[in-house]
Amino acid sequence: MIERRRITGFSNPTVKALRALREKKHRKREGRFLAEGLRLLTDARACGHIPATLVLSTARDPHPLLAALEADVAASGGEILETTPDILSKITGKDNPQAVAGVFTEFDTALSALERSRAPIWLVAQALRDPGNLGTMLRTGDAIGAGGLILLDDCADPFSVEAVRASMGAVFTQTIAQARWDEFLPWLRAGEGQLIAASLRDAQPYRSASYAAPCFLMVGNESRGLPEEYELACDLRVTMPMRGRADSLNAAVAAAVLGYEILAHLDK
Amino acid sequence: MIERRRITGFSNPTVKALRALREKKHRKREGRFLAEGLRLLTDARACGHIPATLVLSTARDPHPLLAALEADVAASGGEILETTPDILSKITGKDNPQAVAGVFTEFDTALSALERSRAPIWLVAQALRDPGNLGTMLRTGDAIGAGGLILLDDCADPFSVEAVRASMGAVFTQTIAQARWDEFLPWLRAGEGQLIAASLRDAQPYRSASYAAPCFLMVGNESRGLPEEYELACDLRVTMPMRGRADSLNAAVAAAVLGYEILAHLDK
Repeated sequence: MIERRRITGFSNPTVKALRALREKKHRKREGRFLAEGLRLLTDARACGHIPATLVLSTARDPHPLLAALEADVAASGGEILETTPDILSKITGKDNPQAVAGVFTEFDTALSALERSRAPIWLVAQALRDPGNLGTMLRTGDAIGAGGLILLDDCADPFSVEAVRASMGAVFTQTIAQARWDEFLPWLRAGEGQLIAASLRDAQPYRSASYAAPCFLMVGNESRGLPEEYELACDLRVTMPMRGRADSLNAAVAAAVLGYEILAHLDK
Repeated sequence: MIERRRITGFSNPTVKALRALREKKHRKREGRFLAEGLRLLTDARACGHIPATLVLSTARDPHPLLAALEADVAASGGEILETTPDILSKITGKDNPQAVAGVFTEFDTALSALERSRAPIWLVAQALRDPGNLGTMLRTGDAIGAGGLILLDDCADPFSVEAVRASMGAVFTQTIAQARWDEFLPWLRAGEGQLIAASLRDAQPYRSASYAAPCFLMVGNESRGLPEEYELACDLRVTMPMRGRADSLNAAVAAAVLGYEILAHLDK
């Protein structure tokens, strides 16, 4: 028999503590983050991430995957809470709450622990500010078989509710590393790896460029792009057609178009 | 001498009326929407869209493009307001307000008025709910030289602050049409046009499919995808590699990867 603790009050301290995980300072202090939805929690479980706390909605429907998740949480000594849809909505900040949410321990991988030859493509984001873009890059990385996402300088938090949601579970499947440029570049140059960026500077057309695995595909900040120094350090600068008035794409879109192009080239 | 009306109070009725344009019901009642930033307003001006009201921050720097914009607004009988950064921030809902915002008349184009042969690619979104995705699709459409974006069924509002912002000005350069599926399909079939969707159903690999202009590239709702009926009505269903756990991409990302692929094929 699995034990569930029932929470019925909005002002319950547990509700407050869970809700606080929507703020970065609380996430960093606790080293924990929130993820919601059975699909996402099942992806997490498949990758070996079992929530320390599972929050079930009283409005949930029975589901074998949910039962399996509960069993795993109980077996690993986690806590299982049950609460109303309204309170769950308050915790996750979503109007139509999912039937389940989980609290996970934050993780990331040191650069030195990345096995770069494990995957043909790695995504790199520099000072990416929008958590939705960050999550979308994780999702795209999963789709193109990337090894993970390396976050350079001051990026949005990959464990924010928005990033986790936009990643559609890829926050659990993709390796995430965080580093400064002056740690990243020496690490990169200490092994094989082609550093690639979209650029207007002395760039080759992206469809005919020579890509060589492992490719490190780097995109820059949403408004400023990459610093000149970073662009100049690239092994390959590529350019994409821009037929309209704009001279750039959304950062997550640029990463995806180039990422799929690289995948097709490497598969040849 | 250009006349500027100074607004200094948060509770000024004009501030309230402008701020109300962040809500869809007010936009629809007024037929007007907000856009912010000199770059965006300059793109709008280049496409013949002059704001009916221009709101300047007292913290702005002088700029020849801003002077040109002011002159055009004055010449077309528009109103020019000047207010503090705090009040401008309240109006646009952005913490770091731009130096200028404008109120524009909403526009859209009837399907029957679209000149489909004017562009090789048109983007089509079905029940797209996220205004950021919608704006990103407009931005991508501009980049790939699309004719415009056709919004099917109940999509997010292209004139919401989030969509306008994410479009980076493309809301002004791209033709926007809104229609129901049962108007769109007969219109499409009354002329030339290849209807294309990403699909897992009897689909061809997207890199080797035969694309023929004008291509109408359709993406579906963020969580449900396209209805089966819509997929079956397509002339071409294409599939993209999905190497990870996920079975789909972000809608705006899928549109961009396929859009760039189609552009490359048509350019051959």
